[in-house]
Amino acid sequence: MVKIVIVGGGNVATHLVKAFSKTKEVSLVQLYARNYEHVTHLKHYTPITNNIESLVKADIYIIAVSDDAIAEVSSKINQKNSLIVHTSGSASLNSLKNNGRKGVFYLLQSFSKEKNVDFSTIPFCLEAEDKNDLILLKKLAYSIGEKIYDINSEQRKRLHVAAVFVNNFTNHMYKIGSDICSKHKVPFEVLLPLIQETAKKITELTPEEAQTGPAKRNDQKTIQNHLNLLDSEQQEIYKLITKSIQNNGEKL
Amino acid sequence: MVKIVIVGGGNVATHLVKAFSKTKEVSLVQLYARNYEHVTHLKHYTPITNNIESLVKADIYIIAVSDDAIAEVSSKINQKNSLIVHTSGSASLNSLKNNGRKGVFYLLQSFSKEKNVDFSTIPFCLEAEDKNDLILLKKLAYSIGEKIYDINSEQRKRLHVAAVFVNNFTNHMYKIGSDICSKHKVPFEVLLPLIQETAKKITELTPEEAQTGPAKRNDQKTIQNHLNLLDSEQQEIYKLITKSIQNNGEKL
Repeated sequence: MVKIVIVGGGNVATHLVKAFSKTKEVSLVQLYARNYEHVTHLKHYTPITNNIESLVKADIYIIAVSDDAIAEVSSKINQKNSLIVHTSGSASLNSLKNNGRKGVFYLLQSFSKEKNVDFSTIPFCLEAEDKNDLILLKKLAYSIGEKIYDINSEQRKRLHVAAVFVNNFTNHMYKIGSDICSKHKVPFEVLLPLIQETAKKITELTPEEAQTGPAKRNDQKTIQNHLNLLDSEQQEIYKLITKSIQNNGEKL
Repeated sequence: MVKIVIVGGGNVATHLVKAFSKTKEVSLVQLYARNYEHVTHLKHYTPITNNIESLVKADIYIIAVSDDAIAEVSSKINQKNSLIVHTSGSASLNSLKNNGRKGVFYLLQSFSKEKNVDFSTIPFCLEAEDKNDLILLKKLAYSIGEKIYDINSEQRKRLHVAAVFVNNFTNHMYKIGSDICSKHKVPFEVLLPLIQETAKKITELTPEEAQTGPAKRNDQKTIQNHLNLLDSEQQEIYKLITKSIQNNGEKL
Protein backbone atom coordinates (compact mmCIF):
# COMPACT_ATOMS: atom_id res chain seq x y z
CA MET A 1 0.00 0.00 0.00
CA VAL A 2 1.41 3.38 -1.06
CA LYS A 3 1.23 5.98 1.70
CA ILE A 4 0.77 9.56 0.58
CA VAL A 5 0.52 13.03 2.09
CA ILE A 6 -1.11 15.87 0.17
CA VAL A 7 0.24 19.38 0.67
CA GLY A 8 -2.01 22.28 -0.29
CA GLY A 9 -5.48 23.72 0.28
CA GLY A 10 -6.63 24.67 -3.22
CA ASN A 11 -8.79 23.05 -5.88
CA VAL A 12 -6.27 20.45 -7.02
CA ALA A 13 -5.46 19.38 -3.44
CA THR A 14 -9.16 19.15 -2.58
CA HIS A 15 -10.04 16.99 -5.59
CA LEU A 16 -7.01 14.73 -5.02
CA VAL A 17 -7.98 14.22 -1.37
CA LYS A 18 -11.45 13.10 -2.39
CA ALA A 19 -10.19 10.85 -5.18
CA PHE A 20 -7.42 9.10 -3.24
CA SER A 21 -9.71 8.54 -0.26
CA LYS A 22 -11.75 6.18 -2.43
CA THR A 23 -8.88 4.01 -3.66
CA LYS A 24 -7.71 0.79 -2.08
CA GLU A 25 -4.17 0.86 -3.46
CA VAL A 26 -3.32 4.17 -1.84
CA SER A 27 -3.53 5.31 1.75
CA LEU A 28 -3.90 9.05 2.22
CA VAL A 29 -2.35 9.55 5.66
CA GLN A 30 -2.41 13.34 6.02
CA LEU A 31 -3.35 16.67 4.45
CA TYR A 32 -1.28 19.79 5.12
CA ALA A 33 -2.71 23.24 4.45
CA ARG A 34 -1.38 26.59 5.64
CA ASN A 35 -4.90 27.82 6.31
CA TYR A 36 -6.66 25.19 8.36
CA GLU A 37 -10.04 26.87 7.75
CA HIS A 38 -9.83 26.33 3.98
CA VAL A 39 -9.78 22.57 4.38
CA THR A 40 -11.81 21.79 7.50
CA HIS A 41 -14.54 20.35 5.25
CA LEU A 42 -12.02 17.62 4.31
CA LYS A 43 -11.34 16.47 7.87
CA HIS A 44 -13.50 13.36 7.56
CA TYR A 45 -11.29 12.18 4.67
CA THR A 46 -7.90 12.39 6.41
CA PRO A 47 -6.10 14.00 9.38
CA ILE A 48 -5.21 17.63 8.72
CA THR A 49 -2.29 19.73 9.93
CA ASN A 50 -1.27 23.34 9.37
CA ASN A 51 2.20 22.79 10.82
CA ILE A 52 4.66 21.67 8.14
CA GLU A 53 7.09 20.52 10.86
CA SER A 54 4.63 17.85 11.92
CA LEU A 55 4.20 15.98 8.63
CA VAL A 56 3.90 12.24 9.10
CA LYS A 57 6.01 9.75 7.18
CA ALA A 58 4.83 8.73 3.70
CA ASP A 59 6.10 7.21 0.44
CA ILE A 60 5.02 10.19 -1.65
CA TYR A 61 4.32 13.84 -0.81
CA ILE A 62 2.14 15.54 -3.42
CA ILE A 63 2.63 19.29 -3.39
CA ALA A 64 -0.36 21.12 -4.84
CA VAL A 65 0.48 24.75 -4.06
CA SER A 66 1.03 27.84 -6.23
CA ASP A 67 4.17 27.79 -8.40
CA ASP A 68 5.87 30.45 -6.29
CA ALA A 69 5.51 28.38 -3.11
CA ILE A 70 6.86 25.07 -4.48
CA ALA A 71 10.52 25.78 -3.64
CA GLU A 72 9.86 26.86 -0.07
CA VAL A 73 7.33 24.15 0.77
CA SER A 74 9.44 21.36 -0.75
CA SER A 75 12.56 22.51 1.08
CA LYS A 76 10.72 22.10 4.38
CA ILE A 77 9.75 18.47 3.84
CA ASN A 78 12.59 16.61 5.54
CA GLN A 79 11.99 13.12 4.25
CA LYS A 80 15.13 11.97 2.47
CA ASN A 81 13.74 8.58 1.58
CA SER A 82 10.44 9.78 0.18
CA LEU A 83 9.43 10.90 -3.29
CA ILE A 84 8.28 14.50 -3.47
CA VAL A 85 6.26 15.63 -6.48
CA HIS A 86 4.62 18.87 -7.50
CA THR A 87 1.47 19.26 -9.61
CA SER A 88 2.36 22.32 -11.66
CA GLY A 89 2.21 22.57 -15.44
CA SER A 90 4.76 25.35 -15.69
CA ALA A 91 7.29 24.67 -12.92
CA SER A 92 10.21 22.41 -13.81
CA LEU A 93 11.16 19.34 -11.82
CA ASN A 94 14.08 21.27 -10.37
CA SER A 95 11.85 23.84 -8.75
CA LEU A 96 11.54 21.19 -6.03
CA LYS A 97 14.16 21.95 -3.35
CA ASN A 98 13.98 18.84 -1.18
CA ASN A 99 17.08 16.75 -0.53
CA GLY A 100 16.06 13.61 -2.32
CA ARG A 101 13.82 12.08 -4.93
CA LYS A 102 11.77 14.40 -7.13
CA GLY A 103 8.93 14.06 -9.57
CA VAL A 104 5.96 15.73 -11.21
CA PHE A 105 2.31 14.71 -11.05
CA TYR A 106 0.58 17.21 -13.36
CA LEU A 107 -3.13 16.93 -14.10
CA LEU A 108 -4.00 18.74 -17.30
CA GLN A 109 -7.47 20.05 -16.57
CA SER A 110 -9.13 23.22 -15.38
CA PHE A 111 -10.53 22.55 -11.90
CA SER A 112 -13.20 24.47 -10.11
CA LYS A 113 -13.95 23.94 -6.45
CA GLU A 114 -17.67 23.33 -6.73
CA LYS A 115 -17.66 20.89 -9.61
CA ASN A 116 -17.02 17.17 -9.26
CA VAL A 117 -14.11 15.85 -11.25
CA ASP A 118 -14.16 12.73 -13.42
CA PHE A 119 -10.55 11.60 -13.10
CA SER A 120 -11.00 8.91 -15.73
CA THR A 121 -11.02 11.62 -18.42
CA ILE A 122 -8.11 13.69 -17.09
CA PRO A 123 -4.61 13.33 -18.57
CA PHE A 124 -1.94 12.64 -15.92
CA CYS A 125 1.44 13.98 -17.06
CA LEU A 126 4.15 12.24 -15.07
CA GLU A 127 7.87 12.80 -14.67
CA ALA A 128 10.53 11.49 -12.31
CA GLU A 129 14.35 11.47 -12.22
CA ASP A 130 14.42 7.81 -11.31
CA LYS A 131 12.89 5.03 -13.39
CA ASN A 132 11.40 3.26 -10.36
CA ASP A 133 9.89 6.50 -9.13
CA LEU A 134 8.16 6.88 -12.49
CA ILE A 135 6.72 3.39 -12.07
CA LEU A 136 5.55 4.36 -8.58
CA LEU A 137 3.89 7.53 -9.91
CA LYS A 138 2.14 5.53 -12.63
CA LYS A 139 0.78 3.16 -10.00
CA LEU A 140 -0.47 6.19 -8.08
CA ALA A 141 -2.04 7.73 -11.20
CA TYR A 142 -3.72 4.50 -12.32
CA SER A 143 -5.33 4.18 -8.87
CA ILE A 144 -7.56 7.16 -9.70
CA GLY A 145 -7.12 7.74 -13.44
CA GLU A 146 -6.85 6.12 -16.86
CA LYS A 147 -4.98 8.51 -19.17
CA ILE A 148 -1.33 8.44 -18.17
CA TYR A 149 1.49 10.12 -20.13
CA ASP A 150 5.27 10.40 -19.71
CA ILE A 151 5.93 14.11 -20.13
CA ASN A 152 9.32 15.63 -19.33
CA SER A 153 9.83 19.17 -18.00
CA GLU A 154 10.53 20.70 -21.42
CA GLN A 155 7.45 19.07 -22.93
CA ARG A 156 5.32 20.03 -19.97
CA LYS A 157 6.27 23.70 -20.27
CA ARG A 158 5.13 23.62 -23.90
CA LEU A 159 1.97 21.74 -23.02
CA HIS A 160 1.17 24.43 -20.48
CA VAL A 161 1.44 27.17 -23.14
CA ALA A 162 -0.61 25.08 -25.55
CA ALA A 163 -3.23 24.74 -22.79
CA VAL A 164 -3.41 28.53 -22.51
CA PHE A 165 -4.26 28.72 -26.21
CA VAL A 166 -6.92 25.98 -26.23
CA ASN A 167 -8.45 26.97 -22.88
CA ASN A 168 -7.95 30.63 -21.88
CA PHE A 169 -7.64 32.04 -25.40
CA THR A 170 -10.51 29.92 -26.73
CA ASN A 171 -12.59 31.17 -23.83
CA HIS A 172 -11.70 34.69 -24.88
CA MET A 173 -12.99 33.95 -28.38
CA TYR A 174 -16.26 32.99 -26.66
CA LYS A 175 -16.07 36.26 -24.72
CA ILE A 176 -15.76 38.31 -27.91
CA GLY A 177 -18.64 36.36 -29.46
CA SER A 178 -20.68 37.05 -26.35
CA ASP A 179 -19.79 40.78 -26.38
CA ILE A 180 -20.87 41.07 -30.03
CA CYS A 181 -24.16 39.30 -29.25
CA SER A 182 -25.04 41.34 -26.20
CA LYS A 183 -24.23 44.62 -27.97
CA HIS A 184 -26.79 43.68 -30.65
CA LYS A 185 -29.36 42.06 -28.36
CA VAL A 186 -28.85 38.55 -29.67
CA PRO A 187 -28.92 35.84 -26.98
CA PHE A 188 -25.47 34.21 -26.63
CA GLU A 189 -27.17 30.79 -26.42
CA VAL A 190 -27.62 30.99 -30.22
CA LEU A 191 -23.87 30.36 -30.48
CA LEU A 192 -23.67 27.48 -28.01
CA PRO A 193 -24.44 24.63 -30.46
CA LEU A 194 -21.71 25.90 -32.80
CA ILE A 195 -19.26 26.10 -29.89
CA GLN A 196 -20.05 22.51 -28.91
CA GLU A 197 -19.76 21.30 -32.50
CA THR A 198 -16.40 23.04 -32.94
CA ALA A 199 -15.03 21.30 -29.86
CA LYS A 200 -16.49 17.95 -30.91
CA LYS A 201 -15.16 18.12 -34.47
CA ILE A 202 -11.60 18.30 -33.16
CA THR A 203 -11.92 14.82 -31.66
CA GLU A 204 -12.40 13.43 -35.18
CA LEU A 205 -10.45 15.78 -37.47
CA THR A 206 -7.13 17.60 -37.16
CA PRO A 207 -7.52 21.36 -36.56
CA GLU A 208 -6.30 21.91 -40.10
CA GLU A 209 -8.92 19.59 -41.59
CA ALA A 210 -11.62 21.10 -39.38
CA GLN A 211 -10.95 24.70 -40.41
CA THR A 212 -13.57 26.53 -42.51
CA GLY A 213 -14.66 30.15 -42.94
CA PRO A 214 -13.64 33.35 -44.72
CA ALA A 215 -9.97 33.29 -43.63
CA LYS A 216 -9.47 29.73 -44.89
CA ARG A 217 -11.29 30.50 -48.19
CA ASN A 218 -9.50 33.85 -48.44
CA ASP A 219 -12.91 35.46 -48.94
CA GLN A 220 -11.75 39.09 -48.87
CA LYS A 221 -15.23 40.52 -49.35
CA THR A 222 -16.61 38.80 -46.22
CA ILE A 223 -13.43 39.60 -44.26
CA GLN A 224 -13.83 43.29 -45.10
CA ASN A 225 -17.54 43.23 -44.19
CA HIS A 226 -16.68 41.62 -40.87
CA LEU A 227 -13.95 44.14 -40.05
CA ASN A 228 -16.42 46.98 -40.61
CA LEU A 229 -18.65 45.55 -37.88
CA LEU A 230 -15.98 45.33 -35.16
CA ASP A 231 -14.41 47.74 -32.69
CA SER A 232 -10.69 48.48 -32.97
CA GLU A 233 -9.50 45.81 -30.52
CA GLN A 234 -11.70 43.15 -32.12
CA GLN A 235 -10.45 44.22 -35.57
CA GLU A 236 -6.85 43.81 -34.47
CA ILE A 237 -7.56 40.28 -33.24
CA TYR A 238 -9.62 39.42 -36.34
CA LYS A 239 -6.83 40.55 -38.68
CA LEU A 240 -4.04 38.80 -36.81
CA ILE A 241 -5.82 35.44 -36.51
CA THR A 242 -7.02 35.62 -40.12
CA LYS A 243 -3.42 36.20 -41.22
CA SER A 244 -2.25 33.32 -39.05
CA ILE A 245 -4.91 30.94 -40.46
CA GLN A 246 -3.74 31.87 -43.95
CA ASN A 247 -0.08 31.35 -43.03
CA ASN A 248 -1.14 27.95 -41.73
CA GLY A 249 1.77 27.62 -39.33
CA GLU A 250 4.33 27.98 -42.09
CA LYS A 251 6.46 30.26 -39.96
CA LEU A 252 6.78 27.59 -37.29
CA MET B 1 -49.35 21.47 -46.45
CA VAL B 2 -46.52 23.88 -47.26
CA LYS B 3 -44.91 23.18 -50.63
CA ILE B 4 -41.24 23.98 -50.91
CA VAL B 5 -38.46 23.90 -53.52
CA ILE B 6 -34.83 23.79 -52.47
CA VAL B 7 -32.29 25.56 -54.67
CA GLY B 8 -28.64 24.55 -54.31
CA GLY B 9 -26.33 21.55 -54.37
CA GLY B 10 -24.08 22.07 -51.36
CA ASN B 11 -24.04 20.83 -47.77
CA VAL B 12 -26.90 22.97 -46.49
CA ALA B 13 -29.16 22.06 -49.43
CA THR B 14 -28.35 18.36 -49.02
CA HIS B 15 -29.13 18.29 -45.31
CA LEU B 16 -32.33 20.30 -45.81
CA VAL B 17 -33.53 17.89 -48.52
CA LYS B 18 -33.06 14.95 -46.18
CA ALA B 19 -34.69 16.69 -43.22
CA PHE B 20 -37.76 18.04 -45.05
CA SER B 21 -38.33 14.69 -46.75
CA LYS B 22 -39.14 13.22 -43.37
CA THR B 23 -41.70 15.81 -42.26
CA LYS B 24 -45.44 15.55 -42.73
CA GLU B 25 -46.20 19.28 -42.57
CA VAL B 26 -43.98 20.11 -45.53
CA SER B 27 -43.92 18.75 -49.05
CA LEU B 28 -40.58 19.04 -50.82
CA VAL B 29 -41.64 19.20 -54.46
CA GLN B 30 -38.31 19.81 -56.23
CA LEU B 31 -34.57 20.29 -55.90
CA TYR B 32 -32.68 22.55 -58.29
CA ALA B 33 -28.91 22.29 -58.64
CA ARG B 34 -26.70 23.74 -61.35
CA ASN B 35 -24.62 20.57 -61.43
CA TYR B 36 -26.95 17.63 -61.66
CA GLU B 37 -24.14 15.19 -60.83
CA HIS B 38 -23.59 16.74 -57.40
CA VAL B 39 -27.09 15.82 -56.28
CA THR B 40 -28.01 12.62 -58.13
CA HIS B 41 -27.72 10.76 -54.79
CA LEU B 42 -30.73 12.80 -53.65
CA LYS B 43 -33.03 11.77 -56.51
CA HIS B 44 -34.99 9.29 -54.38
CA TYR B 45 -35.96 12.14 -52.05
CA THR B 46 -37.42 14.53 -54.62
CA PRO B 47 -37.45 15.34 -58.37
CA ILE B 48 -34.31 17.16 -59.47
CA THR B 49 -33.78 19.76 -62.19
CA ASN B 50 -30.73 21.65 -63.39
CA ASN B 51 -32.81 24.07 -65.43
CA ILE B 52 -33.87 27.09 -63.38
CA GLU B 53 -36.51 27.94 -66.01
CA SER B 54 -38.37 24.77 -65.18
CA LEU B 55 -38.96 25.27 -61.46
CA VAL B 56 -42.33 24.01 -60.32
CA LYS B 57 -44.74 26.12 -58.29
CA ALA B 58 -44.25 26.21 -54.51
CA ASP B 59 -45.12 28.28 -51.45
CA ILE B 60 -41.49 28.78 -50.44
CA TYR B 61 -38.22 28.60 -52.39
CA ILE B 62 -35.20 28.04 -50.13
CA ILE B 63 -32.01 29.27 -51.79
CA ALA B 64 -28.93 27.55 -50.36
CA VAL B 65 -26.19 28.77 -52.70
CA SER B 66 -22.99 30.78 -52.15
CA ASP B 67 -23.49 34.43 -51.15
CA ASP B 68 -22.28 35.68 -54.53
CA ALA B 69 -24.92 33.68 -56.38
CA ILE B 70 -27.95 34.72 -54.29
CA ALA B 71 -28.80 37.83 -56.38
CA GLU B 72 -28.64 36.06 -59.72
CA VAL B 73 -30.44 32.89 -58.66
CA SER B 74 -33.23 34.78 -56.85
CA SER B 75 -33.77 37.10 -59.82
CA LYS B 76 -34.46 34.06 -62.00
CA ILE B 77 -37.24 32.64 -59.84
CA ASN B 78 -40.35 34.12 -61.43
CA GLN B 79 -42.90 33.34 -58.77
CA LYS B 80 -44.48 36.58 -57.65
CA ASN B 81 -46.80 34.96 -55.14
CA SER B 82 -44.20 32.81 -53.45
CA LEU B 83 -41.87 33.54 -50.56
CA ILE B 84 -38.20 33.33 -51.47
CA VAL B 85 -35.63 32.94 -48.69
CA HIS B 86 -31.87 32.56 -48.58
CA THR B 87 -29.87 30.65 -45.99
CA SER B 88 -26.85 32.91 -45.63
CA GLY B 89 -25.48 34.30 -42.39
CA SER B 90 -23.79 37.27 -43.99
CA ALA B 91 -26.06 38.32 -46.89
CA SER B 92 -28.81 40.81 -46.07
CA LEU B 93 -32.45 40.21 -46.87
CA ASN B 94 -32.13 42.67 -49.74
CA SER B 95 -29.54 40.60 -51.53
CA LEU B 96 -32.58 38.69 -52.79
CA LYS B 97 -33.56 40.15 -56.18
CA ASN B 98 -36.88 38.46 -56.82
CA ASN B 99 -40.01 40.54 -57.47
CA GLY B 100 -41.96 39.67 -54.40
CA ARG B 101 -41.84 38.34 -50.87
CA LYS B 102 -38.41 37.87 -49.24
CA GLY B 103 -37.07 36.21 -46.16
CA VAL B 104 -34.09 34.55 -44.51
CA PHE B 105 -33.81 31.00 -43.19
CA TYR B 106 -30.33 30.90 -41.65
CA LEU B 107 -29.11 27.80 -39.83
CA LEU B 108 -26.26 28.67 -37.49
CA GLN B 109 -24.11 25.56 -37.62
CA SER B 110 -21.07 24.29 -39.43
CA PHE B 111 -22.20 21.54 -41.81
CA SER B 112 -20.07 18.85 -43.37
CA LYS B 113 -21.37 16.65 -46.15
CA GLU B 114 -20.57 13.28 -44.58
CA LYS B 115 -21.92 13.91 -41.11
CA ASN B 116 -25.57 13.53 -40.16
CA VAL B 117 -27.15 16.62 -38.71
CA ASP B 118 -29.30 16.75 -35.60
CA PHE B 119 -31.63 19.62 -36.49
CA SER B 120 -33.15 19.66 -33.01
CA THR B 121 -29.95 21.29 -31.69
CA ILE B 122 -29.45 23.82 -34.49
CA PRO B 123 -30.53 27.46 -34.08
CA PHE B 124 -32.81 28.65 -36.90
CA CYS B 125 -32.44 32.41 -37.40
CA LEU B 126 -35.49 33.69 -39.25
CA GLU B 127 -36.38 36.98 -40.90
CA ALA B 128 -39.13 38.15 -43.23
CA GLU B 129 -40.47 41.53 -44.38
CA ASP B 130 -44.04 40.46 -43.78
CA LYS B 131 -45.43 39.30 -40.43
CA ASN B 132 -47.37 36.43 -41.97
CA ASP B 133 -44.30 35.28 -43.86
CA LEU B 134 -42.40 35.13 -40.58
CA ILE B 135 -45.17 32.92 -39.17
CA LEU B 136 -44.90 30.72 -42.27
CA LEU B 137 -41.11 30.43 -41.85
CA LYS B 138 -41.54 29.51 -38.20
CA LYS B 139 -43.94 26.75 -39.18
CA LEU B 140 -41.36 25.52 -41.68
CA ALA B 141 -38.55 25.67 -39.10
CA TYR B 142 -40.54 23.90 -36.38
CA SER B 143 -41.27 21.06 -38.81
CA ILE B 144 -37.60 20.02 -38.59
CA GLY B 145 -36.15 22.01 -35.66
CA GLU B 146 -36.72 23.24 -32.13
CA LYS B 147 -34.57 26.31 -31.58
CA ILE B 148 -36.14 29.17 -33.47
CA TYR B 149 -35.04 32.82 -33.22
CA ASP B 150 -36.20 36.10 -34.80
CA ILE B 151 -32.98 37.67 -36.06
CA ASN B 152 -33.00 40.73 -38.32
CA SER B 153 -30.39 41.43 -41.03
CA GLU B 154 -28.27 43.69 -38.82
CA GLN B 155 -28.25 41.19 -35.98
CA ARG B 156 -27.52 38.33 -38.34
CA LYS B 157 -24.45 40.06 -39.77
CA ARG B 158 -23.10 40.45 -36.23
CA LEU B 159 -23.97 36.89 -35.37
CA HIS B 160 -22.01 35.75 -38.39
CA VAL B 161 -18.89 37.62 -37.22
CA ALA B 162 -19.38 36.28 -33.71
CA ALA B 163 -19.57 32.78 -35.22
CA VAL B 164 -16.21 33.32 -36.90
CA PHE B 165 -14.69 34.04 -33.49
CA VAL B 166 -16.23 31.09 -31.63
CA ASN B 167 -15.77 28.63 -34.51
CA ASN B 168 -12.96 29.48 -36.96
CA PHE B 169 -10.79 31.42 -34.52
CA THR B 170 -11.33 28.93 -31.71
CA ASN B 171 -10.35 26.19 -34.13
CA HIS B 172 -7.19 28.15 -34.86
CA MET B 173 -6.40 28.21 -31.12
CA TYR B 174 -6.65 24.41 -31.31
CA LYS B 175 -4.34 24.52 -34.33
CA ILE B 176 -1.70 26.48 -32.44
CA GLY B 177 -2.02 24.09 -29.50
CA SER B 178 -1.60 21.21 -31.90
CA ASP B 179 1.44 22.81 -33.59
CA ILE B 180 3.13 23.33 -30.21
CA CYS B 181 2.43 19.71 -29.25
CA SER B 182 3.68 18.17 -32.47
CA LYS B 183 6.86 20.27 -32.43
CA HIS B 184 7.67 18.83 -29.00
CA LYS B 185 6.42 15.29 -29.62
CA VAL B 186 3.47 15.51 -27.24
CA PRO B 187 0.29 13.81 -28.52
CA PHE B 188 -2.43 16.41 -29.18
CA GLU B 189 -4.97 14.08 -27.52
CA VAL B 190 -3.55 15.20 -24.15
CA LEU B 191 -5.31 18.53 -24.75
CA LEU B 192 -8.67 17.13 -25.84
CA PRO B 193 -10.27 16.79 -22.37
CA LEU B 194 -9.37 20.41 -21.61
CA ILE B 195 -10.87 21.51 -24.93
CA GLN B 196 -14.10 19.66 -24.15
CA GLU B 197 -14.24 21.06 -20.62
CA THR B 198 -13.70 24.62 -21.88
CA ALA B 199 -16.62 24.25 -24.30
CA LYS B 200 -18.81 22.65 -21.63
CA LYS B 201 -18.08 25.26 -18.98
CA ILE B 202 -19.51 27.98 -21.22
CA THR B 203 -22.95 26.35 -21.09
CA GLU B 204 -23.01 27.00 -17.32
CA LEU B 205 -20.93 30.14 -16.80
CA THR B 206 -20.50 33.40 -18.74
CA PRO B 207 -17.18 33.61 -20.63
CA GLU B 208 -16.09 36.21 -18.10
CA GLU B 209 -16.83 33.95 -15.13
CA ALA B 210 -15.20 30.99 -16.88
CA GLN B 211 -11.90 32.76 -17.58
CA THR B 212 -8.77 31.63 -15.70
CA GLY B 213 -5.04 31.60 -16.44
CA PRO B 214 -2.01 33.89 -16.43
CA ALA B 215 -3.63 36.74 -18.41
CA LYS B 216 -6.62 36.91 -16.05
CA ARG B 217 -4.35 36.72 -12.97
CA ASN B 218 -1.90 39.17 -14.57
CA ASP B 219 0.85 36.65 -13.77
CA GLN B 220 3.69 38.45 -15.59
CA LYS B 221 6.29 35.82 -14.73
CA THR B 222 4.33 33.01 -16.39
CA ILE B 223 3.38 35.24 -19.34
CA GLN B 224 7.07 36.00 -19.94
CA ASN B 225 8.01 32.33 -19.64
CA HIS B 226 5.33 31.44 -22.16
CA LEU B 227 6.41 34.11 -24.65
CA ASN B 228 9.96 32.73 -24.55
CA LEU B 229 8.66 29.34 -25.74
CA LEU B 230 6.76 30.63 -28.80
CA ASP B 231 7.65 31.58 -32.35
CA SER B 232 7.14 35.18 -33.46
CA GLU B 233 3.64 34.71 -34.91
CA GLN B 234 2.46 32.80 -31.83
CA GLN B 235 4.00 35.50 -29.61
CA GLU B 236 2.09 38.20 -31.43
CA ILE B 237 -1.19 36.32 -30.93
CA TYR B 238 -0.36 35.51 -27.29
CA LYS B 239 0.38 39.16 -26.49
CA LEU B 240 -2.68 40.55 -28.24
CA ILE B 241 -5.16 38.13 -26.67
CA THR B 242 -3.55 38.50 -23.24
CA LYS B 243 -3.94 42.29 -23.54
CA SER B 244 -7.55 41.85 -24.66
CA ILE B 245 -8.36 39.52 -21.73
CA GLN B 246 -6.92 42.13 -19.39
CA ASN B 247 -8.90 44.94 -21.04
CA ASN B 248 -11.96 42.75 -20.53
CA GLY B 249 -13.93 44.34 -23.34
CA GLU B 250 -13.70 47.80 -21.80
CA LYS B 251 -13.01 49.39 -25.17
CA LEU B 252 -16.25 48.03 -26.58
